[in-house]
Amino acid sequence: MHPELSALIAAVQPADAAATEAARARQAQLTKPAGALGDLEALGIRLAGVFGTARPHPQGVAVLVAAGDHGVAADGVSAYPAEVTPAMVANFLAETPAGPGGAAVNALARTVGAQVYVMDAGVNAALPDHPALVRAARQRGTANLRVGAAMTRADAEALVLAGAALARRAIRSGADLLVPGEMGIGNTTPAAAMTARLLNLDALQVTGRGTGVDDERLSHKVTVIREALARTAVTDPLDVLAEFGGFEIAAMLGMMLQAAALRRVVILDGFVEGSAALVGVALAPHLRDFLFPAGECAEIGHAAQLAHLELKPMFRLGLRLGEGSGGVLAAPLLLSAAAALREMRTFAEAGIPT
Amino acid sequence: MHPELSALIAAVQPADAAATEAARARQAQLTKPAGALGDLEALGIRLAGVFGTARPHPQGVAVLVAAGDHGVAADGVSAYPAEVTPAMVANFLAETPAGPGGAAVNALARTVGAQVYVMDAGVNAALPDHPALVRAARQRGTANLRVGAAMTRADAEALVLAGAALARRAIRSGADLLVPGEMGIGNTTPAAAMTARLLNLDALQVTGRGTGVDDERLSHKVTVIREALARTAVTDPLDVLAEFGGFEIAAMLGMMLQAAALRRVVILDGFVEGSAALVGVALAPHLRDFLFPAGECAEIGHAAQLAHLELKPMFRLGLRLGEGSGGVLAAPLLLSAAAALREMRTFAEAGIPT
Repeated sequence: MHPELSALIAAVQPADAAATEAARARQAQLTKPAGALGDLEALGIRLAGVFGTARPHPQGVAVLVAAGDHGVAADGVSAYPAEVTPAMVANFLAETPAGPGGAAVNALARTVGAQVYVMDAGVNAALPDHPALVRAARQRGTANLRVGAAMTRADAEALVLAGAALARRAIRSGADLLVPGEMGIGNTTPAAAMTARLLNLDALQVTGRGTGVDDERLSHKVTVIREALARTAVTDPLDVLAEFGGFEIAAMLGMMLQAAALRRVVILDGFVEGSAALVGVALAPHLRDFLFPAGECAEIGHAAQLAHLELKPMFRLGLRLGEGSGGVLAAPLLLSAAAALREMRTFAEAGIPT
Repeated sequence: MHPELSALIAAVQPADAAATEAARARQAQLTKPAGALGDLEALGIRLAGVFGTARPHPQGVAVLVAAGDHGVAADGVSAYPAEVTPAMVANFLAETPAGPGGAAVNALARTVGAQVYVMDAGVNAALPDHPALVRAARQRGTANLRVGAAMTRADAEALVLAGAALARRAIRSGADLLVPGEMGIGNTTPAAAMTARLLNLDALQVTGRGTGVDDERLSHKVTVIREALARTAVTDPLDVLAEFGGFEIAAMLGMMLQAAALRRVVILDGFVEGSAALVGVALAPHLRDFLFPAGECAEIGHAAQLAHLELKPMFRLGLRLGEGSGGVLAAPLLLSAAAALREMRTFAEAGIPT
């Protein structure tokens, strides 16, 4: 393993237990009936653990969208042609009357004041230069995971480190809440293969319709994933990433590890992000303390990921877009959870009988 | 009926059907797989209907918190003493290091930049003067609804008009999204009585634990509500409000009607707000077009209200606080739904094959 990656994994330490306990005690004294803020209370307490204070004040939000193509797309596992990946990267970067970016994640990010970063993690096209495009591609798309390793271990580790570097940049620019996001036609197939192997499940239990395949294609997708899983018995997390993963998944893994190592929040968007998170907690179990799932997404394997992580999503809006779109939507809920814990008066401060 | 109230009810007209259809057509062309933004897509289309444009751009958010006391609180239907109502009004108005207001709704409102208005709709205390306190009380709390009408029809109608006046003020100050909220110890009892009568349900089906009563008190609360319902057979919506309601519920009804009449969004917070909404749609069926339920709250009667309104909440965070707290949390989701519809490029604009 690259020494920089070993160091990154070792740097992921648990959330602050003392701050967590102090926040729990403070939560019980705030001017509301115990538990009346529902899940927001537990979220606030977890945020206290991340930021090491009973009155957490997280501020900037950044979405880090990694894009990559997938050799397995040639097998027809997606409803969309692979050409959509570079076209969507161009869309993320386009100038529009409303501001930079014409995709969903751009519009949502503008609403909550989130910074959007776009990374070419391995798109199968010559992307035109753009000042906002982060270039990290080592290959133009992965190899077909059905017939062989999607990428080499070296390429996988390099992309993890590139993701970590982008996370450091976002954090240096003021982001306390990071949303790893992705774009890559076909990438629910690697995500399903990784999830099946890491959670020891059958392909059928984790394979969904992605952005909209029909019954016939879904059945074909399951077959492709089963064939991939039968090809190799690897279980080492980074080997699983290299055999079945995607470059954008590797990059998101790096973002997650780096955010946790620097004690920032990772908002976990959807199923593809979840596959990176599974590798992450296998490498660095304390990563879990820094993960905050956004919404329950429509992919069936997502629930299995969240059950394994023992984390509860914040909403159930039926999103299945990717791009980090759900993560951006969740950011105000986390900022609100922190604000309630931080800014509410206690019963004693308000002179209210308890 | 007061002529001003009749005029208000008549002013609630349907959402704009042409804008709704134009938004639906636009939604289908945006750079994402059809349906990939889940519930956000339908929310965006409804917002288009409210604002009369396929590219809605709602901006300001206001929370209008009405406070009132309840004669029925003397029957022990709440886990908290009635003195908490004026103390919480003081808390809404208190100066704190973080800004005005030390309650949950204040902290949440600051996070999303929402303006908070506080109205004395009928608190049982001499509230000290405060520049930000809107005085609309005609009585210091309602009469005990178990033994007689909670208020006169005249007082009920006056409070509805006071709520409407406050909504106009918030809208004049730039609010496009209004969150009616409430504070009133004991007010899930009137809300349950109103819901039972308006939906023709038994008290048991709509009576919950409010902010935290135990089993024994819950059973007592059901008995109190049954006694109230047995007392009179009124079904006229404003009579139901006067017989079983609360001053803050009347005020919220006025806010809702006025917001809809001026074609603004009403974010519907919890169970007590829902009881006002049921009266509202009974008086003005098109009010429904302007209602956007925030979260599914923990009160069992809330689901019955939403089923009747045929509206789906945006999240399920287990909130049971009131104050408009859940409504404030939902505001960014609605602003995001509008932003996606308004700002995303179409496939044609992005040059992406479909």
